[in-house]
Amino acid sequence: MLISMNVNATEEQMRAVCTRIEELGFRPHPLTGTSRYVIGITGNKDLSAADQLSQMPGVAEVIAVTKPYKLVSRDMKPEDTVVRFAGSDATVGGAELAIMAGPCSVESRDQIFRVAEAVGKGGARFLRGGAFKPRTSPYAFQGMGEKGLEIMAAAREAFGLLVVTEAIDQESLALVEQYADMIQIGARNMQNFALLKQAGRTRKPVLLKRGMSATLEELLMAAEYIMSEGNYNVVLCERGIRTFASHTRNTLDVGIIPAAKKLTHLPILVDPSHAAGERDKVVPLALAGVAAGADGLIVEVHCDPDRALSDGAQSLYPDQFAAMVGQVRGIGEVLGRTLPQPGHPQPTGAGVSK
Amino acid sequence: MLISMNVNATEEQMRAVCTRIEELGFRPHPLTGTSRYVIGITGNKDLSAADQLSQMPGVAEVIAVTKPYKLVSRDMKPEDTVVRFAGSDATVGGAELAIMAGPCSVESRDQIFRVAEAVGKGGARFLRGGAFKPRTSPYAFQGMGEKGLEIMAAAREAFGLLVVTEAIDQESLALVEQYADMIQIGARNMQNFALLKQAGRTRKPVLLKRGMSATLEELLMAAEYIMSEGNYNVVLCERGIRTFASHTRNTLDVGIIPAAKKLTHLPILVDPSHAAGERDKVVPLALAGVAAGADGLIVEVHCDPDRALSDGAQSLYPDQFAAMVGQVRGIGEVLGRTLPQPGHPQPTGAGVSK
Amino acid sequence: MLISMNVNATEEQMRAVCTRIEELGFRPHPLTGTSRYVIGITGNKDLSAADQLSQMPGVAEVIAVTKPYKLVSRDMKPEDTVVRFAGSDATVGGAELAIMAGPCSVESRDQIFRVAEAVGKGGARFLRGGAFKPRTSPYAFQGMGEKGLEIMAAAREAFGLLVVTEAIDQESLALVEQYADMIQIGARNMQNFALLKQAGRTRKPVLLKRGMSATLEELLMAAEYIMSEGNYNVVLCERGIRTFASHTRNTLDVGIIPAAKKLTHLPILVDPSHAAGERDKVVPLALAGVAAGADGLIVEVHCDPDRALSDGAQSLYPDQFAAMVGQVRGIGEVLGRTLPQPGHPQPTGAGVSK
Amino acid sequence: MLISMNVNATEEQMRAVCTRIEELGFRPHPLTGTSRYVIGITGNKDLSAADQLSQMPGVAEVIAVTKPYKLVSRDMKPEDTVVRFAGSDATVGGAELAIMAGPCSVESRDQIFRVAEAVGKGGARFLRGGAFKPRTSPYAFQGMGEKGLEIMAAAREAFGLLVVTEAIDQESLALVEQYADMIQIGARNMQNFALLKQAGRTRKPVLLKRGMSATLEELLMAAEYIMSEGNYNVVLCERGIRTFASHTRNTLDVGIIPAAKKLTHLPILVDPSHAAGERDKVVPLALAGVAAGADGLIVEVHCDPDRALSDGAQSLYPDQFAAMVGQVRGIGEVLGRTLPQPGHPQPTGAGVSK
Repeated sequence: MLISMNVNATEEQMRAVCTRIEELGFRPHPLTGTSRYVIGITGNKDLSAADQLSQMPGVAEVIAVTKPYKLVSRDMKPEDTVVRFAGSDATVGGAELAIMAGPCSVESRDQIFRVAEAVGKGGARFLRGGAFKPRTSPYAFQGMGEKGLEIMAAAREAFGLLVVTEAIDQESLALVEQYADMIQIGARNMQNFALLKQAGRTRKPVLLKRGMSATLEELLMAAEYIMSEGNYNVVLCERGIRTFASHTRNTLDVGIIPAAKKLTHLPILVDPSHAAGERDKVVPLALAGVAAGADGLIVEVHCDPDRALSDGAQSLYPDQFAAMVGQVRGIGEVLGRTLPQPGHPQPTGAGVSK
Repeated sequence: MLISMNVNATEEQMRAVCTRIEELGFRPHPLTGTSRYVIGITGNKDLSAADQLSQMPGVAEVIAVTKPYKLVSRDMKPEDTVVRFAGSDATVGGAELAIMAGPCSVESRDQIFRVAEAVGKGGARFLRGGAFKPRTSPYAFQGMGEKGLEIMAAAREAFGLLVVTEAIDQESLALVEQYADMIQIGARNMQNFALLKQAGRTRKPVLLKRGMSATLEELLMAAEYIMSEGNYNVVLCERGIRTFASHTRNTLDVGIIPAAKKLTHLPILVDPSHAAGERDKVVPLALAGVAAGADGLIVEVHCDPDRALSDGAQSLYPDQFAAMVGQVRGIGEVLGRTLPQPGHPQPTGAGVSK
Repeated sequence: MLISMNVNATEEQMRAVCTRIEELGFRPHPLTGTSRYVIGITGNKDLSAADQLSQMPGVAEVIAVTKPYKLVSRDMKPEDTVVRFAGSDATVGGAELAIMAGPCSVESRDQIFRVAEAVGKGGARFLRGGAFKPRTSPYAFQGMGEKGLEIMAAAREAFGLLVVTEAIDQESLALVEQYADMIQIGARNMQNFALLKQAGRTRKPVLLKRGMSATLEELLMAAEYIMSEGNYNVVLCERGIRTFASHTRNTLDVGIIPAAKKLTHLPILVDPSHAAGERDKVVPLALAGVAAGADGLIVEVHCDPDRALSDGAQSLYPDQFAAMVGQVRGIGEVLGRTLPQPGHPQPTGAGVSK
Repeated sequence: MLISMNVNATEEQMRAVCTRIEELGFRPHPLTGTSRYVIGITGNKDLSAADQLSQMPGVAEVIAVTKPYKLVSRDMKPEDTVVRFAGSDATVGGAELAIMAGPCSVESRDQIFRVAEAVGKGGARFLRGGAFKPRTSPYAFQGMGEKGLEIMAAAREAFGLLVVTEAIDQESLALVEQYADMIQIGARNMQNFALLKQAGRTRKPVLLKRGMSATLEELLMAAEYIMSEGNYNVVLCERGIRTFASHTRNTLDVGIIPAAKKLTHLPILVDPSHAAGERDKVVPLALAGVAAGADGLIVEVHCDPDRALSDGAQSLYPDQFAAMVGQVRGIGEVLGRTLPQPGHPQPTGAGVSK
């Protein structure tokens, strides 16, 4: 923590700040010889208390130097985290790119089985699909609930895919933990701290989506909530941020990928579907994310998107998805990442946990 | 719902869209004579399904005309909602401006009693103070919990103030409903739909803060969630949005006040403290909010902000608060709003619900 | 300038940074005893060169402590600047609130004379109106040019108002300097540095509008460009920033008013018309700006807005304007600002410069 | 243009709107059978005048259906524009990816010759470098002026590269037109309409950078300004937008690439350097841009970035640049784009125009 004083701050004001720093149990380190006083603060306690000093006479600015996150930090763990799944050789964060695909919502057994087969053939090793849907309107389709989870688990058995699905509250999280291989926390819940802590007490990997206006630091702190409860298998996911630009639904912030990799050892995926909002723009955003260094993709695919109960306009057709995976493989090779050819023998029965 | 076709869309493409509209159970109304085809869509069912048409060949844009909210809409209820509280003559949304004040967090009985007395004398009729705190860091002070609610309830008895305090999850909401006069839903939970529905099943008025990147429509839809469960006493609150501007913590969006008043009958308050982030800027933002037509303020006040456990830098001193209320009264008079002189006999025992 | 090193930066890396600082001609001041190394940098030269150090091994962050602006700074000149106009007792930045009103564009002598009379009676002492229009479309009305300036100057003589009008390039600035009392630099030209320097070489006060995505520091640096050429009569103007919020055309950032007042001695106005985009929302935003501490308003008024060649939807009717000025006067009184009653004897012939 | 009326708008209000539409010289087309009235508007004149109707009683919204741009539109010219350069076989917008590289500023003949040689060997066919610099501070290095252009022209002769350099005002544009192969209009000047029109009257291709908060429509309208003066060789450039996210200097909006390609036939490049702000993040952003479908890159390279007079922290070292070009080639191949191996015989004397 550093205190920068105003150019015309008096010596008396500077001494008052130093005295206050000592009262708070810290040590002040005045830095002289500059055009303005700067005071460094050190100590063993939480330095954020020093933030209060910002309102003292003569203080221009309080500057945080120490970062508030610990477990997520690359300072703490320099090597990349590789997330593994019981009963499968799939990983997230290793050399292999992780491809997760499926519909926005679980609508029926038939729908899920058709799309699971298609995305598995197309190159996905993870099946996505929501049984609990956070919808902006209380009058919109809210998901099939536990019945949807049962369908997803059945598709896992049938097609050898890992299941990733969203939990939106305490009850659904308990169910998702039972049925799924990976628990998704959606963008709107990125700072639902009660949910994060509950996810931290499970033993399933967590896919944590960035909130629509979350800073990188806030995203890392949300991951810290999960890790501080003992669950170290957290995967971040960029899904677009809210800006003034309306040519896509959200603005995919590919810059967060190298920025996150510098600060944290956790893997990061890209969700091009929610950023794009329209099918035409999904593939370019997906390829951009991989090129920027993402560890994989989570993408919406539907066999009959014009009849989807949600997000149809941004769902890829299965053949578009398969073609995209081919391009992702090509780009991955340029960057030293691997992606197995689809149709390679998949391990079946990938960790049925119920 | 309207479909705008590309300039060079073919007649065949337009017919295909019309056919698809009929398949979906709606009626197409082609509008000719313009430089491009436009197709209106009518029907009794939820028109949002027509959104799927955006990806059909030749379609340039799908334009929503109907709004998705109902109960919050001024179309439905033209007159302003006035929220009332059991055992008190205080209101939100009527002629009288509502002033809510108190610390960020409940820290101790002594702290709350001192500040409650001060804000009551200064002109507040509502005491704010958090017992459950959504904190960005898992290592920061998380609030006193139920003990904090007991202190707030005791202060209500002692000083005749109504209590407004935040619920952050299922458990805390059940407790807040018991102890408080008004349930606050914070910005980070504005789209925590499970929490909104639960708040909608209580019978206490709800203070709903706008999410940091929520559109007006999303804020109204969040209120719709609460109202759709039967609780019609919802008060909106603008507290600053996330923008590129860093001279305040968030950018107070005063323009949402007249915009909201046009679309909804619900009252709207302003929280200048979280927008400002610094004490110096709180009063100008508070006055701006009232001048723009807000129905009142919720503001952070602390008797010893330099020692506050949270948000000290943005908390007003009691005398600053009292001076601000005087200015608010003056501005309110210009706009035809009232604000009783502080020290007027307050009703004691304002609706103890436990 | 401060350099914060990574937590696990080596001593060798820190020494390398110190050596490099000395090579650049500065002095390093290592600050020890904290969890990470911090190095202060002092020297007589422009410290921004130290920015290059951000890429050296072990460096976490380079933190600017010194501000890049000088002449605009309150550090340099603690008392408020009051801008005066030849041949008039009107001021901007003193106790009196400055009210500037008129149409978006000069369309005809008749239009200007009608509106000038109306806004003068309504309480304005400055007449606005554009003769040169920066329009998003090359096919839209681009303004009357010099003929428009002549009309404005004639209206000044007839109604005793000061004229403020926009210059958009070198040629128009030379003309505006001749005819107007105050030169307006529009939001799109806030970083047109050639234009700023030219405006700095004139001897007429300059109204500098904030760019749609300009930070406060960038706005101050733009004013610094003007002042560095010798023209110290600069008035800032907030007119709304670009955000995701679409319920107003732009988001009026009232928080910049107290933030600017803290850093600079220059006056700041608010333009509620361009922020609102719609007539209904102009008055609430105007009142909010004044309540937040602005030194006045510049607002669009048109006698027949439904037939205006530009910005009709956001132009007030004269009677709305007069009613608003009454409310502005009331709010100003609460804040210790004055606003003369309209109809008070105006000095005629306010400084004809041609 | 469509007018959507309020749900409870009266028939009388709707008739008044229709009457007003006819007065304006357009034809109203009421669309009935929906929950609210919608009125289509057609006519031969500029429909933007209908915008005024937004303030009439009962009107909920005015919706623009027609786009304001013409020459830039893919409706007008479905096939991609390929920009060609006199005396060179390099193109922008064809199958070959265009690589432009060089320092932020021209600092000396030696600096430019060293970097020109390096980027030519590394795979660039265009040399960038500014002789006129728009700097936020009036006290920062403002560029070498015409002397800098002479150095750039000499480097073109020596290394067979095309020269692209920025013009910032009328005088510098006249000089840049003489010396350069391509005229760059910077982000801050994207809506400097006088400069755009002047560039439109030259016969050199124009590189038009997106403003920091420009919408896609505003970018297209800026290109329309240039084209409307007769210069059809315009290349767009995405360089990052201003958002709340501070982990990169600006947020590279890769989504604008597919969005632009849908609406316009003009090529679009990506500038990863100004978006990144830090060397470490430049390459990931560059690759993301190419993967999203950009027609090439403009990137900052410096042989001694730690001593650069501007933008050193975001300049690549020559060997980083060469490695990046190799990856760009690989990604280009995946997408069907070509990029010649560096060192292929370049045409020398690429169109000296002086």
